[in-house]
Amino acid sequence: MDNLELIREIATPSPSKIVLLVIDGLGGLPHPRTGKTELETASTPNLDKLAASSICGLTDPVGPGITPGSTPGHLALFGYDPVKYNIGRGVVAALGIDFDLKPDDIAARGNFCTLDNAGLVTDRRAGRIPTEKCAELCKLLDEIKIEGVNLFVRPVKEHRFAVVFRGEGLSPEISDSDPQQTGVAPKVVKALNPAANTTADIANEFVARARTILARHHPANMVILRGFSSLPTIPTMDDIYILKPAAIAAYPMYRGLAKLVGMQLLKTGPSISDEFEALKQNYAGYDFFFLHIKGTDSAGEDGDFDRKVSVIEEIDKALPALTGLKPDVIVVTADHSTPAILKGHSWHPVPILLYSKWCRADRVGEFSETACISGGLGRFPAIQIMPLAMANALKLAKFGA
Amino acid sequence: MDNLELIREIATPSPSKIVLLVIDGLGGLPHPRTGKTELETASTPNLDKLAASSICGLTDPVGPGITPGSTPGHLALFGYDPVKYNIGRGVVAALGIDFDLKPDDIAARGNFCTLDNAGLVTDRRAGRIPTEKCAELCKLLDEIKIEGVNLFVRPVKEHRFAVVFRGEGLSPEISDSDPQQTGVAPKVVKALNPAANTTADIANEFVARARTILARHHPANMVILRGFSSLPTIPTMDDIYILKPAAIAAYPMYRGLAKLVGMQLLKTGPSISDEFEALKQNYAGYDFFFLHIKGTDSAGEDGDFDRKVSVIEEIDKALPALTGLKPDVIVVTADHSTPAILKGHSWHPVPILLYSKWCRADRVGEFSETACISGGLGRFPAIQIMPLAMANALKLAKFGA
Repeated sequence: MDNLELIREIATPSPSKIVLLVIDGLGGLPHPRTGKTELETASTPNLDKLAASSICGLTDPVGPGITPGSTPGHLALFGYDPVKYNIGRGVVAALGIDFDLKPDDIAARGNFCTLDNAGLVTDRRAGRIPTEKCAELCKLLDEIKIEGVNLFVRPVKEHRFAVVFRGEGLSPEISDSDPQQTGVAPKVVKALNPAANTTADIANEFVARARTILARHHPANMVILRGFSSLPTIPTMDDIYILKPAAIAAYPMYRGLAKLVGMQLLKTGPSISDEFEALKQNYAGYDFFFLHIKGTDSAGEDGDFDRKVSVIEEIDKALPALTGLKPDVIVVTADHSTPAILKGHSWHPVPILLYSKWCRADRVGEFSETACISGGLGRFPAIQIMPLAMANALKLAKFGA
Repeated sequence: MDNLELIREIATPSPSKIVLLVIDGLGGLPHPRTGKTELETASTPNLDKLAASSICGLTDPVGPGITPGSTPGHLALFGYDPVKYNIGRGVVAALGIDFDLKPDDIAARGNFCTLDNAGLVTDRRAGRIPTEKCAELCKLLDEIKIEGVNLFVRPVKEHRFAVVFRGEGLSPEISDSDPQQTGVAPKVVKALNPAANTTADIANEFVARARTILARHHPANMVILRGFSSLPTIPTMDDIYILKPAAIAAYPMYRGLAKLVGMQLLKTGPSISDEFEALKQNYAGYDFFFLHIKGTDSAGEDGDFDRKVSVIEEIDKALPALTGLKPDVIVVTADHSTPAILKGHSWHPVPILLYSKWCRADRVGEFSETACISGGLGRFPAIQIMPLAMANALKLAKFGA
């Protein structure tokens, strides 16, 4: 019996409400000059006050030393073993744009990219073309016809798009064309087993046609594809937790992840205050809210320590809009660390605070990586966050006699 | 290889002795007025002194967020994965009264209860009738004859009894008649698979006959049954740890659990000092002692904060009788938390101290939930307690070359 089966057995509906605030990439590393992380540098009186009446700790999204992608990081937060449920990037991209993915569809995440005259990738993001340009180019690619398959090309955001192949006997067991670096040519897609030969041929045919069509659209003169995948079989949060869950996320990928586990996607504007407003507007209708804030991760990825600090301070200012709703349980954490000095995701455990009337608060009075080391939650795997939140919401019955 | 297989491979007999003192439901929540838990409120100089020379921590009996019943809580303390070894309440009840359960017997836990004129349950515990009354009524029910089965009805304590069905081809896969609430009728027992049809019929026949017999015995005018189960296959503590283990427990259920894992049940009076005296009397004969104290849990369940504090203080006063025996390893912990303000078991991790000459004591100088956060054991699953105790008793050989 795995963790989810156990929880499913004891989950009990109740009117209590849980808010999971995910500050993407929150965890950081000290600034060499000050010795303080982004979170420790930011002025966060509201988070600190909440931490003082919460139980705190550090959580490992996948495991110590493992740097998680966004998908495993979020699956763990929702209580799903991220190693067992390894969801393809293509599926997440397609779900994130509300594409109605069918069980046998093969989806891939695409980037428009820039090739030089020698056919080598010079920019994997084609200078981050505007989303409007992306949409226009996707329309062109969507016209491509390949025998034996229906294909759909849909814009995501900036240089990102999703492509879906629909047909008989397709297989997701094919390799990426994205070389994950510049200065080399895009890779030929290869079948990872013989049953996937046809699908690999189709993907390569699509790439070749796209290259021809895009030739005159520099900097977006090529595509690279990755994460070929089809829909996994995954139980919904309603099924496991008997929750009515809703997601507030401005970025498509996180909306896709939320939809995958059965959350209702709520309308929201792009800013932090928009998202908190969406929470307020929809607060009566659901008993679980996943509120996702992207700006911290983007700033970390860009290596912009100060911007990450600013985003954290903006969240802190908005926090009373959340705490004012008086949720029974509030969890504030992240899907992974994104230290600005590493300019990318990292393996460092993430600070977490959990507030409830029954949380048995510890002595941590500040929300920071260093303070959370001394927290009552200790250091623990992120898949245990949902059982803890459910317990604190009095939504779990006793296990065993 | 699971945890037990690994331990079995490296367990080594030695003359050292381990005492596991289980203060049932010890973990608590702060009193709203003082901000201190039951354990923090109690004056516990002896426990504090022991903590100062011990390594401390917090332990999760089943997992973070999971509120354990007594059975999984204790199995975890004895080192058994409580999710894998999910023991039925009926088996535990039968073992707890020293009933000689055979491998094919089906046991259920019964309550005498009160029905109103409409046949609805008004009290699931029949006003907690005295044990003597329970014994008298059990004698009446024990006379019931049902074709194809031998049945045994035995008193446990107050309104509780055990019923055992012995016969060919019986199955424990039948549902409870206990509705787990008042204001509704007892449930009809149903077969959970076709092979259990006969057993369900027998159980319903027993309930019908019992109702007739008990009609004139208000408030105990009906029975409700739950936890139909048969003996699990579980390795003994002798087999795994090469220990000669003994149990000192005044309450039947805990004696049953101890017997299930192969402990010798020692005679003891009901009081805390009786139990410590039983330890002293039998100290020479065994190398592992499970000493169980129930009063803390009962007080917590009753919501009686002050009584729980008193029981803890009584244990503290008795403690020198234990430490004076100079066991090589002393573990003090609980099977779960029972905060008085929640009036029931809870998911909160439980304070633990482990004393041995080799424990590498931490800086915790006080036995309390808050102090144990900073302990050297950190926060860890309860099934790791036995390996730790064994290691500290120098009863585990090196693993691997």
